[in-house]
Amino acid sequence: DRPSATPTEEMNGAGNLMDFLDEPIPDVGTYEDFHTIDWLREKSRDTDRHRKVKLQYVSVLLILKAIMRLYTFLCLYIFSNSGTLAGVIDLAVDWMTDLKEGVCLSAFWYSHEQCCWTSNETTFADRDKCPQWQKWAELMTGYNEGAGAYLLNYFLYVMWALFFSFLAVSLVRVFAPYACGSGIPEIKTILSGFIIRGYLGKWTLLIKTVTLVLAVSSGLSLGKEGPLVHVACCCGNLFCSLFSKYSKNEGKRREVLSAAAAAGVSVAFGAPIGGVLFSLEEVSYYFPLKTLWRSFFAALVAAFTLRSINPFGNNRLVLFYVEYHTPWYMAELVPFILLGVFGGLWGTLFIRGNIAWCRRRKTTQLGKYPVLEVIAVTGITAILAFPNPYTRRSTSELISELFNDCGALESSQLCDYINNPNMSRPEDDIPDRPAGPGVYMALWQLALALIFKIVITIFTFGMKIPSGLFIPSMAVGAIAGRIVGIAVEQMAYHHHDWIIFKNWCRPGADCVTPGLYAMVGAAACLGGVTRMTVSLVVIMFELTGGLEYIVPLMAAAVTSKWVADAFGKEGIYEAHIRLNGYPYLDQDEFTHRTLATDVMRPRRNEPPLSVLTQDSTTVEDVEMLIKETDYNGFPVVMSRESERLIGFVQRRDLILAIKTARQKQDGVVSNSVVYFTEDAPQIPASNPQPLKLRRILNLSPFTVTDHTPMETVVDIFRKLGLRQCLVTRSGRLLGIITKKDVLRHMAQMMNQDPESIMFN
Amino acid sequence: DRPSATPTEEMNGAGNLMDFLDEPIPDVGTYEDFHTIDWLREKSRDTDRHRKVKLQYVSVLLILKAIMRLYTFLCLYIFSNSGTLAGVIDLAVDWMTDLKEGVCLSAFWYSHEQCCWTSNETTFADRDKCPQWQKWAELMTGYNEGAGAYLLNYFLYVMWALFFSFLAVSLVRVFAPYACGSGIPEIKTILSGFIIRGYLGKWTLLIKTVTLVLAVSSGLSLGKEGPLVHVACCCGNLFCSLFSKYSKNEGKRREVLSAAAAAGVSVAFGAPIGGVLFSLEEVSYYFPLKTLWRSFFAALVAAFTLRSINPFGNNRLVLFYVEYHTPWYMAELVPFILLGVFGGLWGTLFIRGNIAWCRRRKTTQLGKYPVLEVIAVTGITAILAFPNPYTRRSTSELISELFNDCGALESSQLCDYINNPNMSRPEDDIPDRPAGPGVYMALWQLALALIFKIVITIFTFGMKIPSGLFIPSMAVGAIAGRIVGIAVEQMAYHHHDWIIFKNWCRPGADCVTPGLYAMVGAAACLGGVTRMTVSLVVIMFELTGGLEYIVPLMAAAVTSKWVADAFGKEGIYEAHIRLNGYPYLDQDEFTHRTLATDVMRPRRNEPPLSVLTQDSTTVEDVEMLIKETDYNGFPVVMSRESERLIGFVQRRDLILAIKTARQKQDGVVSNSVVYFTEDAPQIPASNPQPLKLRRILNLSPFTVTDHTPMETVVDIFRKLGLRQCLVTRSGRLLGIITKKDVLRHMAQMMNQDPESIMFN
Repeated sequence: DRPSATPTEEMNGAGNLMDFLDEPIPDVGTYEDFHTIDWLREKSRDTDRHRKVKLQYVSVLLILKAIMRLYTFLCLYIFSNSGTLAGVIDLAVDWMTDLKEGVCLSAFWYSHEQCCWTSNETTFADRDKCPQWQKWAELMTGYNEGAGAYLLNYFLYVMWALFFSFLAVSLVRVFAPYACGSGIPEIKTILSGFIIRGYLGKWTLLIKTVTLVLAVSSGLSLGKEGPLVHVACCCGNLFCSLFSKYSKNEGKRREVLSAAAAAGVSVAFGAPIGGVLFSLEEVSYYFPLKTLWRSFFAALVAAFTLRSINPFGNNRLVLFYVEYHTPWYMAELVPFILLGVFGGLWGTLFIRGNIAWCRRRKTTQLGKYPVLEVIAVTGITAILAFPNPYTRRSTSELISELFNDCGALESSQLCDYINNPNMSRPEDDIPDRPAGPGVYMALWQLALALIFKIVITIFTFGMKIPSGLFIPSMAVGAIAGRIVGIAVEQMAYHHHDWIIFKNWCRPGADCVTPGLYAMVGAAACLGGVTRMTVSLVVIMFELTGGLEYIVPLMAAAVTSKWVADAFGKEGIYEAHIRLNGYPYLDQDEFTHRTLATDVMRPRRNEPPLSVLTQDSTTVEDVEMLIKETDYNGFPVVMSRESERLIGFVQRRDLILAIKTARQKQDGVVSNSVVYFTEDAPQIPASNPQPLKLRRILNLSPFTVTDHTPMETVVDIFRKLGLRQCLVTRSGRLLGIITKKDVLRHMAQMMNQDPESIMFN
Repeated sequence: DRPSATPTEEMNGAGNLMDFLDEPIPDVGTYEDFHTIDWLREKSRDTDRHRKVKLQYVSVLLILKAIMRLYTFLCLYIFSNSGTLAGVIDLAVDWMTDLKEGVCLSAFWYSHEQCCWTSNETTFADRDKCPQWQKWAELMTGYNEGAGAYLLNYFLYVMWALFFSFLAVSLVRVFAPYACGSGIPEIKTILSGFIIRGYLGKWTLLIKTVTLVLAVSSGLSLGKEGPLVHVACCCGNLFCSLFSKYSKNEGKRREVLSAAAAAGVSVAFGAPIGGVLFSLEEVSYYFPLKTLWRSFFAALVAAFTLRSINPFGNNRLVLFYVEYHTPWYMAELVPFILLGVFGGLWGTLFIRGNIAWCRRRKTTQLGKYPVLEVIAVTGITAILAFPNPYTRRSTSELISELFNDCGALESSQLCDYINNPNMSRPEDDIPDRPAGPGVYMALWQLALALIFKIVITIFTFGMKIPSGLFIPSMAVGAIAGRIVGIAVEQMAYHHHDWIIFKNWCRPGADCVTPGLYAMVGAAACLGGVTRMTVSLVVIMFELTGGLEYIVPLMAAAVTSKWVADAFGKEGIYEAHIRLNGYPYLDQDEFTHRTLATDVMRPRRNEPPLSVLTQDSTTVEDVEMLIKETDYNGFPVVMSRESERLIGFVQRRDLILAIKTARQKQDGVVSNSVVYFTEDAPQIPASNPQPLKLRRILNLSPFTVTDHTPMETVVDIFRKLGLRQCLVTRSGRLLGIITKKDVLRHMAQMMNQDPESIMFN
């Protein structure tokens, strides 16, 4: 009877997506696990909530205040949690990594660095050595030199590593299977509108935090940056559960999660703007402007919380703070671009190798013994890593050393240059010098470390422990970059009469900074694996703090992306999403010229679409339909003859409504007629009481015509976040396209197995 | 005969948005001036183009290469143009601003600074004075002191200002009326999908560049930052016209324009990341990820081009480079937040005052004398500005001085502190000192300058000359901030035993930096006017280069936005968009509970919808319909009785098709039947030859049901960029909703005059 209502009534109420329930059926409008959410519906429900809140408060000012309070609290919560957690993780990792080698006698909970910093007997030049810090062999046998001590240290190093990794994988297996991996593929999928219950739960948060520390400390070739994003999202989700605004609306929840992801990257690298752009470019799917501001706020405060904990001990926000003293020169773009090519090739190799190995794990016996696999990989890693000083230490320390410019006071082997005896005092701006034996030794060790890292990382990522690949990728790039950098530097020193060096590299000048090459290499390799562009450059820019080096970074990032894209469009996260068959609709353009009619169900030879009629189906028919099919919803038509579409009803809502009606409403029996119209149909009095279900009917289902290009359909699914879409021709219902159909079709168009899309 | 086609045929071709034309009708698919574009159609057309390109090249590699080449060229072109132009503008403005006061005798084309830098006789302490630079009075009469010389200088200053502004307004009037204003409201509208021909044309570019220099040099209270965005977009558009890929597709064109806008802000402030975020937050409407990368690239290279021209003479990328030596303290957040409140109030006052004045200009006689208005405002500005040293100089110089910390060598009046006689040598870290008479004098002058700027800016913005409001807004904030900063500083010096100062401000310490207050004030005022948040903070962060001061900036920006939002949701750009009645659908959420049926045309008492039938309308009927109505398109239905929707045809395409058919196709006369079906209808042989128009029929018009909430409809219009949407109920066509209807409805819901939406 809508047409008879006055215009005012129409404006203010009545016709929302679902009619208001006289008595709300519990759980109507929620989702089951592994289902796709309907963004439009979530958005509409949020407006309903707002309207109700408005009715309660009346005053606009009060609402504004309430929103602001919530808003502030949200930000406060997320950052403090993820920032604090990140700080605790950093401190724990430091301590446990050092525990593999020795212990601090004055206070066993001190890491090597803290132990020696607090000691009075440490001199600046020899700040790594102090009597309080003892290696295991020294502590147990009294000797620190000799083969026996070396072997004992070696043995204990491997044992500790095995112990840590065993503990990590056992905890993951027993308490929280979702805590494994980097979590970014799953978070991308969740943010695109998919339900994975428990993935962002309390247990996952707790176990991931603990096992992340164990996994990183065990010396495996993995990083903590990706998992930190997962941890931050868990914090965000935990926060959501405090407020019905966020916990009851899957759309609102995802806005908070986007901000949390930004905070995660922000604390991982100390790069708040980079974090926001990472969330925008790589993780988020639906990124409205207000999320931008929230993300920025969350990222900043997370970064500042982290700094106040000061886990890096350098009062800096960033993980790898570097300061270079010389600019770069145009001619250096050639090696930078070569590093970009290397990064692209590494990205391709890594993605292909890793995906092949993960597929083998899924399909063969290998997948049945995850604990054994982790133990084996840890054993191999520890045994191969110990002899080489560059792999023995933690990967972030390695990267930090590779990034650094050789100052005058640097004691590292990499800085063993032959000094000019005429040089009187140490300066910041040291001219290029010939490499000493330490540097050549370091080069060999770095080359071995490079091969080791490349191979072992492929097998490590994807095991049943928390593992990120930012740090291993950066390590590979940094090693390659440093090697190239030293080569260019020595070439420039020995051949500064060559044409290419003549213009910018006079003798006695400091013209090549090998640390910069390491940084460019790291960016290239990270870009090749993840296909980040802007966020990558901005993160790296925030590490150095100068616009100076953006051009080299950009050149490398672009080259790396182009090279990697030439071998395959997907980054590692998309590849894992596809491997796991998540229903993720990526942002790439769909350019095939198929039509909606080619994709919709039913196909030509299939039985007709399962539909309900608006006033002639019985409860029994509906129950039969529910039993026989597993569709997520059914279109409601005027009659089977006219095929005119009235609306769409969700399977879950239908089941709940009938169950509730059978329990509470008298007279509803199996042959009661179900009707979706405003008024009950004319039925004889002898028939049982009919059941009105208009309240669960979506009166505005989304439709397209059969001639609509699939390109447009994909665009609509992506932008509006639809779950399904009905196909009509001149008003007649022809079929239905679900998100799964779209994904299947896209896989088919790319010559992939359409059945690899597992969920719906 | 589609159903009989084999599946392969269906997949590969045939049914795109418009059937392929046997013989393309010229101009079909283009838009008229002041019309809204249809994003979905543009996107689909781009895919058609890609497909054709693919057919030509065959090899995927070749296409990749071609795309890359285009892509590189695009970026190269945009930056070099907008970066170079910005550099030239900066240099010209410097010279002409100084020309108002005097001339360089050694080379008249040198600005004051350049003149004295090149002179040998300049000492560092007195670097503003050199014999080569002569004021007009000195040059003409030989005297530089005394009332006569002062009056002569005063007179010539006013005359030059009047001359420059007269020239500017005349050029705009005669050659390019679109060159006036800041251009950002119009660019926002264009990017949201609207056609304003000539707005980004060659003439506009040329005249805007020239008149921008004149307007800024005339000393009016306006800036060049907003117009630089317009200039950059003109460059981008010019670039588009070189490639059919961009010039023929309005959607692709807008992607380039978004990147160009980022480059514009990037060169205006030397803040590439801030530019990208500005484009994302404030200007762009449709911002896919690849636009992010392009914008970043364009912004960066524009910034580097600008730096290589080095117009600021400081080898810095940024306009106002500052370096502070002391951190800020928690207690200072109170004055920062107060500055935020001031910024919000200023924003409200400015927007209300300026809009009221602009409305008066539109509706009264005032609007008929734009030249006179500009002359009058310039005269008043120049007469009032000359006596006050802080208003006489250019606004950017003023801001630069206000931002700066008082170093030991600073000669400015603002740094006239009483030095401690014990202080032996100038250091960077100067403790707080009592203010000298110069500072008190400066405070009075600044207070007067503040009032003057506040009032005059309201009347200046919106006149018929290029005018931006970034710089005047920042000036207002910087003056207020510096005054507050000096007050806090002196309070801290004289009362460092007060509780609030006790903890952080011991005697002899440098605890308050008035320059930082100026910067925070500038950010607050700019935020109040434009309602930028993230981009504002990032731009300011890039000015200082340290994360250190982000918290004060953020506190001020958020406070300012909240205070301003409390008085009215719209920023200055949205307010001007509404004032001018542009069809801009903003990103705010629509929360009213109306339905599609309340908004659609025809309303209840109106005549029925003008439709075409698929096979029973004659050419004459169509021509009559076109003549009698001014709708942009007509739905095509199966028959008037069934009202089943077949498709939608654009008015423009219909006119062109009939015109072409009448000229070229024999037998088409007024009573020929027009048909949109695949096969010609069965008509007697005596009837004239029918005209097939299926090729211009859009077979996939967008439909929603009459029960769809307007919230969802607004969302669909916004996200998919629709031009119109048809409303159906159970398969029957009920009505149509155009973008204009949506905008009218939104205005009505906000209690505004719905007829203020002028265009469609």
